[in-house]
Amino acid sequence: MARHDLPRPTEDELIARYFAPLAGAGGLSLRDDAAVLTPRPGHDLILTTDAVVAGVHYFADDPPASIAHKALGVNLSDLAAKGAEPRGFLLTLALSDDWDESWLAEFCTGLSEAAALASCPLLGGDTVRASGPTLLGITALGEVPSGTMVRRGAAQVGDRLLVTGSIGDAALGLKLRQKPGASWGEALSFPVRAALVDRYLHPQARLALAPALRAHARAAMDVSDGLVGDLAKMMRAADLSAEVEVARIPLSDAVRAAVAAVPGLLDTALTGGDDYEILCAADPAKVPALHEAAGRAGLALTEIGTVTEGGAPPVFRAADGTARHFRSGSFSHF
Amino acid sequence: MARHDLPRPTEDELIARYFAPLAGAGGLSLRDDAAVLTPRPGHDLILTTDAVVAGVHYFADDPPASIAHKALGVNLSDLAAKGAEPRGFLLTLALSDDWDESWLAEFCTGLSEAAALASCPLLGGDTVRASGPTLLGITALGEVPSGTMVRRGAAQVGDRLLVTGSIGDAALGLKLRQKPGASWGEALSFPVRAALVDRYLHPQARLALAPALRAHARAAMDVSDGLVGDLAKMMRAADLSAEVEVARIPLSDAVRAAVAAVPGLLDTALTGGDDYEILCAADPAKVPALHEAAGRAGLALTEIGTVTEGGAPPVFRAADGTARHFRSGSFSHF
Repeated sequence: MARHDLPRPTEDELIARYFAPLAGAGGLSLRDDAAVLTPRPGHDLILTTDAVVAGVHYFADDPPASIAHKALGVNLSDLAAKGAEPRGFLLTLALSDDWDESWLAEFCTGLSEAAALASCPLLGGDTVRASGPTLLGITALGEVPSGTMVRRGAAQVGDRLLVTGSIGDAALGLKLRQKPGASWGEALSFPVRAALVDRYLHPQARLALAPALRAHARAAMDVSDGLVGDLAKMMRAADLSAEVEVARIPLSDAVRAAVAAVPGLLDTALTGGDDYEILCAADPAKVPALHEAAGRAGLALTEIGTVTEGGAPPVFRAADGTARHFRSGSFSHF
Repeated sequence: MARHDLPRPTEDELIARYFAPLAGAGGLSLRDDAAVLTPRPGHDLILTTDAVVAGVHYFADDPPASIAHKALGVNLSDLAAKGAEPRGFLLTLALSDDWDESWLAEFCTGLSEAAALASCPLLGGDTVRASGPTLLGITALGEVPSGTMVRRGAAQVGDRLLVTGSIGDAALGLKLRQKPGASWGEALSFPVRAALVDRYLHPQARLALAPALRAHARAAMDVSDGLVGDLAKMMRAADLSAEVEVARIPLSDAVRAAVAAVPGLLDTALTGGDDYEILCAADPAKVPALHEAAGRAGLALTEIGTVTEGGAPPVFRAADGTARHFRSGSFSHF
């Protein structure tokens, strides 16, 4: 195509045109070889890194701004689950050979919005030729008061398990994205279908809950690979197990309607990935304070079960008390 | 091939088997969703991120341990040039579809060696399917006493320009790697050819010079995209220019021999990439202290020119005083 014959901008030109406007003060307008971050005294830095790859974590023809929201959002979600406040991020942009400037411009607009929403400026980055599908790697940095990072493996027997928002919307949104004419989808109105796809495209990191997690939760992680599998990971990290009441797991009206049409979709909802909700364990005495904080943050927070003595995988109980098993324990992006 | 039919380890198994042994205390054995880093009081964090891609930055059939040394080394080189001491790194490993465990095991052995040499533990990471060539993205974190990061753009008129080690070995090593039977290579003994290739495969970050750069240099950057182009970048960042005496640029005996055989290779040596030496500017009064520190660190350090009033690109003077122009101003990995 003709546009590929146009001279491509150099990496320095890309930085000046697209990335420098996203930079915070620590990014030195991205004109140095490294960024400086001065942590606040008495704070720990929290570091997380997650990459998304075209054709693996998103569709190559997803809107570029949506891809940017997802690339940053999946990292911010990890910070939120650890109780951290974002400080900034670094971006590795490995571009496929057929990239063009309009894609990059839209991507940067989306990244700018996502970064501004989270007060998380771009500190630095690297742009390389992928020689394959585009890959977006982000390292996000956050801060917590010293020693207060919320661990994955610190749950205790008797803790209540809680989850933010609703589970399964993104997994069903992905199914609709893959097969828009699915028969179960036709039972849903267009806005409901669009809302499911939106949850897949635009993870919303639950940063507003971070301070309450530090104050009141014993353990937490974000739900990125399916509730069933991620709960199992959290319990394994503590050498404990859990009992979950399936009927208590928060499902949106859209997911309820889909499951009513095709009951097997409950498996998809509970084992599919991309929820980016927060799963936490808290001393029962702390649960009211967590609920109050979630309410103030405008987030739904639902008790779904209890931490139990270790060994076996968590048990999911149906309304009649029988244990329910899931076909796929965990979604893997790898 | 049969090995591809064997069950692949999961990401959690890879972490336990290969990456957990590389983790420092802050990495929590990589079993949480994020790492914690507690910066020393009175220090700034220095952040840099650089990715290497198979077929772009290295050859897919390079030894896996060498690839690991390069992936970490190019990031450590940025920290060194900023005067920073390494604290740790995060790894994004995007694996091509044909990866196998023996490759990964050798890669991790090399990464472990490189990390131990630099006292720079693995803090966290992400493993994804690349759906294309393997990509290794590293974010490295270092520390400097507050406010002492050595900037790229802080040179002043009259400063002396100095460079560590020798220039051009890696660029010629790359040429030999691409075309082992090159006629100019036959003028060199096998050990000399091997030494050139080694410089391409195994960048040596000049971390030992970091404290002296903080104490005595006004500006610095690492030479990764060729001395000619990188000096131009450093001078542009300061709105200044420079005069360099070509005869003073430190060349190894191997590069001298190659240039004697094919004079055009001097262009390759001075504009090719992958030197990973440090270019710095210093007040003439500070030059003796820099030399002394470099001597103590066992590093060659050579004065190559002077910073001059701005505007035009740096001038490279031949022995007869005429300005020398280079065919390619800068090597781009992008």
